[in-house]
Amino acid sequence: MKAEIISVGTELLLGQLVDTNSVWLSQQLTSLGIDSHFKTTVGDNASNIEQVMALATQRADIIIATGGLGPTQDDITKETLAKTLGLELVYDEALAETIKEKFAIRNIEMSQNNYRQAYYPKGAVVLDQFPGTAPGLYLNHDNTHYFLLPGVPYEMKAIFESSVITKLREIAPIEEQIYTEIVKVWGIPESDVAEKIAKIDDDLAEIGNPKLSYLASGINGISVRISAKSQNEENALSLIKPYQDEIEALLKPYIFGHNSDTMEEYILSLCKKNDFKIACAEWFTAGMMASRLMAYGKTLEVFTGGAIKRGPFKREYLTEIQNELGSDVVLAVTEHPSEKTTVWECQLHILLNDQYFSKMIQIPRHQKEEAMAFAVINCFNFLKNQLQTVEE
Amino acid sequence: MKAEIISVGTELLLGQLVDTNSVWLSQQLTSLGIDSHFKTTVGDNASNIEQVMALATQRADIIIATGGLGPTQDDITKETLAKTLGLELVYDEALAETIKEKFAIRNIEMSQNNYRQAYYPKGAVVLDQFPGTAPGLYLNHDNTHYFLLPGVPYEMKAIFESSVITKLREIAPIEEQIYTEIVKVWGIPESDVAEKIAKIDDDLAEIGNPKLSYLASGINGISVRISAKSQNEENALSLIKPYQDEIEALLKPYIFGHNSDTMEEYILSLCKKNDFKIACAEWFTAGMMASRLMAYGKTLEVFTGGAIKRGPFKREYLTEIQNELGSDVVLAVTEHPSEKTTVWECQLHILLNDQYFSKMIQIPRHQKEEAMAFAVINCFNFLKNQLQTVEE
Repeated sequence: MKAEIISVGTELLLGQLVDTNSVWLSQQLTSLGIDSHFKTTVGDNASNIEQVMALATQRADIIIATGGLGPTQDDITKETLAKTLGLELVYDEALAETIKEKFAIRNIEMSQNNYRQAYYPKGAVVLDQFPGTAPGLYLNHDNTHYFLLPGVPYEMKAIFESSVITKLREIAPIEEQIYTEIVKVWGIPESDVAEKIAKIDDDLAEIGNPKLSYLASGINGISVRISAKSQNEENALSLIKPYQDEIEALLKPYIFGHNSDTMEEYILSLCKKNDFKIACAEWFTAGMMASRLMAYGKTLEVFTGGAIKRGPFKREYLTEIQNELGSDVVLAVTEHPSEKTTVWECQLHILLNDQYFSKMIQIPRHQKEEAMAFAVINCFNFLKNQLQTVEE
Repeated sequence: MKAEIISVGTELLLGQLVDTNSVWLSQQLTSLGIDSHFKTTVGDNASNIEQVMALATQRADIIIATGGLGPTQDDITKETLAKTLGLELVYDEALAETIKEKFAIRNIEMSQNNYRQAYYPKGAVVLDQFPGTAPGLYLNHDNTHYFLLPGVPYEMKAIFESSVITKLREIAPIEEQIYTEIVKVWGIPESDVAEKIAKIDDDLAEIGNPKLSYLASGINGISVRISAKSQNEENALSLIKPYQDEIEALLKPYIFGHNSDTMEEYILSLCKKNDFKIACAEWFTAGMMASRLMAYGKTLEVFTGGAIKRGPFKREYLTEIQNELGSDVVLAVTEHPSEKTTVWECQLHILLNDQYFSKMIQIPRHQKEEAMAFAVINCFNFLKNQLQTVEE
């Protein structure tokens, strides 16, 4: 079974938008053990979309297209697929009602345009549970399987997760699949990570399975990925494990998680384990640290709140926050006044019960939002190191 | 002149790496006035690369391929292009010397593998100044122009900027270029935007230049894009202006900016104009609203701080914040306790001097971080509407 991904949207060809959808879809196909050999981006142009659809139909069994399902005139993916396959477009009364209800819930009157969204190529089925107004579609035509998904990333992902995965498992039962374990680290440059595990890297390059790769995602840490191809997970993990153990031993002080773990999740779990409640005081990051803790969403009882206030912060101020918000830990970031024009200087503070820690970091003066995110992960990492010291 | 971008690399198909190269190249082509209709990603597989090269040769005049120029066995872009065009590979002694010197400078002994990098299809020329060990290549074959560039982003960009741009200007002298003006709106569904400006859309569909398109980017608002192709900016803008004026008149209450403007920028500029200082009180969004104001970075004197505290908030609490942080405006978001399982209910509050406004919104219960961002832009928009009322 071969799959092919098609991204539809002129803005993608103009470079006005990064196509994160196709990256995410590629990852999903990989983890489902489905090979994909081509990925094509095409603009909102009927004859070009037709050309791409026809070619994909020739060479793939599964075709996943994103984008062009909206209510406007330039949304033509469904029409074009219908034309490519010589199918007529049909109107689905029940679907129109479902879309209408979505507007009713939000107390918005539905416009005439949205009725366009209730048409699809004859034979297609509407995929359950679409969070926006654009339904995802599945069509089996001459044993080629077409999935049409909306271009808005969270809508696309929701439909993929609730409907497409199950369908793909039916179509392409898993034979060999790639399983990946990721070790996530922070507080060490990527080149030093590579140097520390160079021997394992060389060994694996010769063995071929499992494989080793790195991905430095900046503010989300460095991912060391060990991937094995196998018929089942148990076998894959047994191939991965000895190397993972060795890598973890070499990188131990820098590890904050595995796979999709985030630094904030790790911090929150450490706090929970120690029965610590946590609050924030921020200026340079102005609430970004707190909002990361909130966005994780699962340990609300651990996070008690925060203050966004111009610094500098003295220890006494952190004690005030500690008392006011009923927390054991206060994490704080302030900007340090500096005459340097190439870096921001930030002070990180931790009040952990009655212990106080503080350190300065420098962040290259580029984009402010990136710099704030960099300060956040560094502050979390600073707490991680202190909490681990407490544990030892 | 039509261009086509080809990204070579199995890691791109597996979703292990985001293809930022092709986004950057698309932007470059757009600003050089060169149309591109397709972008293809293909793995390190000879027959698949050949297939993509052959197809691109049929439909494009300029082909830019990135990746697969490294020293290892899976780097086969040059070999494959040679095979596709029936050319032999030649060895360039001088190039081999240049590569060797690059290693000598870094005090590294060059491996045997790197001699592979001194081969190229007969007729190709080496592009000047390559920062890594992989040279970029240009080949004119039967009036199709091929550029082969390394996949490492900074190497690719350096070669593009030092050599490819000049070459492209020779091949495709700028006659026409695409200029775009974007009108950004919030507080109205995309389908209603389309309905309101349907007549203009129909007219432009017939005229062909300028063109109209929409981009709903969720939490960053809806972009209405008017693009004109022209020999110069002045003329393009004069083509765009009458339609832009008409569109802006129709969408006036929903507009918060143009081009790369953000909602927070608009809020901050409105506050600045009215000499209002602004503070936030948040629970559901837990600092995300404040951090957005901080991330904009340019109007720090307008933003005075915030509190992250469990709600519900009474008007009195907002007055406290107003006094404590010395602000004229307090923007607040809290979660409203609700038994609904499909939505979060949030209350938005504004204290504007001594006027108090409040409203409830519902947000689909999917990903928490998305929902927080949705609450943030809605709260900003709520303030925008109140400030505009004040102005009128």
